Amino acid sequence: MAESREERFIGMMRALACDPAARALGDDAAVVDFGSETLVITHDMMVEGVHWLPGQDEADIAWKLVATNLSDLAAKGAQPIGVLLGYTLGPDDARFAQGLGEALAAFAVPLLGGDTVSAGHGARSHGLTALGRATHRPVPGRNGARVGDRVWITGPVGAAMLGFEVLGGAIRTETVPDATTRAFRRPVPRLAEGIALAPLVGAMMDVSDGLLIDAQRMARASGVTLALQSAAVPIAESLQADAAAEDRRHAAMTWGDDYELLFTLPPDIAPPCLAHAIGRVEEYRGHSLLLDGAAPQGRLGYWHDEPGIADPG
Amino acid sequence: MAESREERFIGMMRALACDPAARALGDDAAVVDFGSETLVITHDMMVEGVHWLPGQDEADIAWKLVATNLSDLAAKGAQPIGVLLGYTLGPDDARFAQGLGEALAAFAVPLLGGDTVSAGHGARSHGLTALGRATHRPVPGRNGARVGDRVWITGPVGAAMLGFEVLGGAIRTETVPDATTRAFRRPVPRLAEGIALAPLVGAMMDVSDGLLIDAQRMARASGVTLALQSAAVPIAESLQADAAAEDRRHAAMTWGDDYELLFTLPPDIAPPCLAHAIGRVEEYRGHSLLLDGAAPQGRLGYWHDEPGIADPG
Repeated sequence: MAESREERFIGMMRALACDPAARALGDDAAVVDFGSETLVITHDMMVEGVHWLPGQDEADIAWKLVATNLSDLAAKGAQPIGVLLGYTLGPDDARFAQGLGEALAAFAVPLLGGDTVSAGHGARSHGLTALGRATHRPVPGRNGARVGDRVWITGPVGAAMLGFEVLGGAIRTETVPDATTRAFRRPVPRLAEGIALAPLVGAMMDVSDGLLIDAQRMARASGVTLALQSAAVPIAESLQADAAAEDRRHAAMTWGDDYELLFTLPPDIAPPCLAHAIGRVEEYRGHSLLLDGAAPQGRLGYWHDEPGIADPG
Repeated sequence: MAESREERFIGMMRALACDPAARALGDDAAVVDFGSETLVITHDMMVEGVHWLPGQDEADIAWKLVATNLSDLAAKGAQPIGVLLGYTLGPDDARFAQGLGEALAAFAVPLLGGDTVSAGHGARSHGLTALGRATHRPVPGRNGARVGDRVWITGPVGAAMLGFEVLGGAIRTETVPDATTRAFRRPVPRLAEGIALAPLVGAMMDVSDGLLIDAQRMARASGVTLALQSAAVPIAESLQADAAAEDRRHAAMTWGDDYELLFTLPPDIAPPCLAHAIGRVEEYRGHSLLLDGAAPQGRLGYWHDEPGIADPG
């Protein structure tokens, strides 16, 4: 696969990220030893037309910006301390502020600072920095999956995909049911689960770009193979009625925005929270990812430089 | 003066920034007690056509993004720990990476993480989060100016203004002299000065939007009057030859982007670094800012929602 512009740029950035705290830019967040504590810090952006649909409720955009960044903290078992917002003024700043306030209240996180700018024309973008305190050290990474571990996920995939389709009009409904689109508009980071899991897991990450691509990233970072069983992957209830159920199952596994936690545990340890066993960690033998025993073909998830909505993590 | 959109939005944000670490969004950075240490954290954005000139060298844009954020840390006497970059892919990502690497090396700060996005169209924007460790507690703020203190600045104003004019073609030269535009393109945050000053100062901030407006902000935050003597304000050497020297002096005091530190000291304390005494702190009597004994008229500096280049802080 040809290297994309984004991959090239990230390669250049990796050369500047020589501090171990940066984890070679290969993890969900930076992990900084800081006095007696360990700081976990992440920054993600959202761009109009890429990460949100034109005309979407500004309150939902704000919520998602908070939730996707806190999801990166959840993947580290970090307790959020606060956020800094980089905001581009838009069509309804009050709605944005409303949604931001709702998200910060829901996750009990204060706004600490940031910056506000006007962009004369073109696509707006926002950035958010989320800051957390590690609750367990060492802080889990993507690279800790060990042969023999079981692979787990905290919840189903596909609900965000369906929400996106309904919201974008790909699936026609008389009125857009709020509950159906909620998973796409208002994801909930698995903060409590991340904190409970951090002392136990081998590897942990959040599923932001699609289960298959994210599982492959975990496998590569750990130098192992993740062998998943597709029938074991929990699929959102709202998708199960779908006529083309099998195609939809695959789509759900390669779509992003679900923000469940993907993690590995030694086989004798049960997860301390609701989770689904979806596979095993095996020795690497030529493929980082196996699905039902074979290397999955085609698109595994959201990939950089692709048009469309996804990849907030 | 009518409230601008940005002011309205910041007002809404202030309601969400109830944590004391946020300093009511009225300071250069957030100050977070974190275990045995105190964290200083700031996030500033730069927007194409607002904070940089179209066609400007991408390496300079990267440098300035780093420098302006580190300047906020300097104002707190913080030692930088690292930065996170929110980057929008552009015409020359390799030049941006080059300038970023130069700035990070010059200030000995590692890249810790961030995000890269593509914006389909329109103005690009970048954000940077800078993270530092407080070297002195309490961490200085804008609100510590006390009646009787002297007011100081670490260096001259106006060089960035001249650099901007030359670079933008407002002043025609056969070739653009690198040294003349350097102050605008490659500002240097006063990190060592900030650390040396932090244990001594009453109030401290960086001059990013213009000396007069920033002095007024310090005065307001402290509930005092800053009485400045214009003849005492150091003006960049390159401006002193100017025919209309007096007009230029005023312009230099109301232009931003200089990134010197403005601070107050008790009258019996001499600054531990090169600095110029430019005024005194007086009891508030109706005007926050006096210049040569009178409230200055007109524009005091870069103001929100204004078109033009400035306000990276």
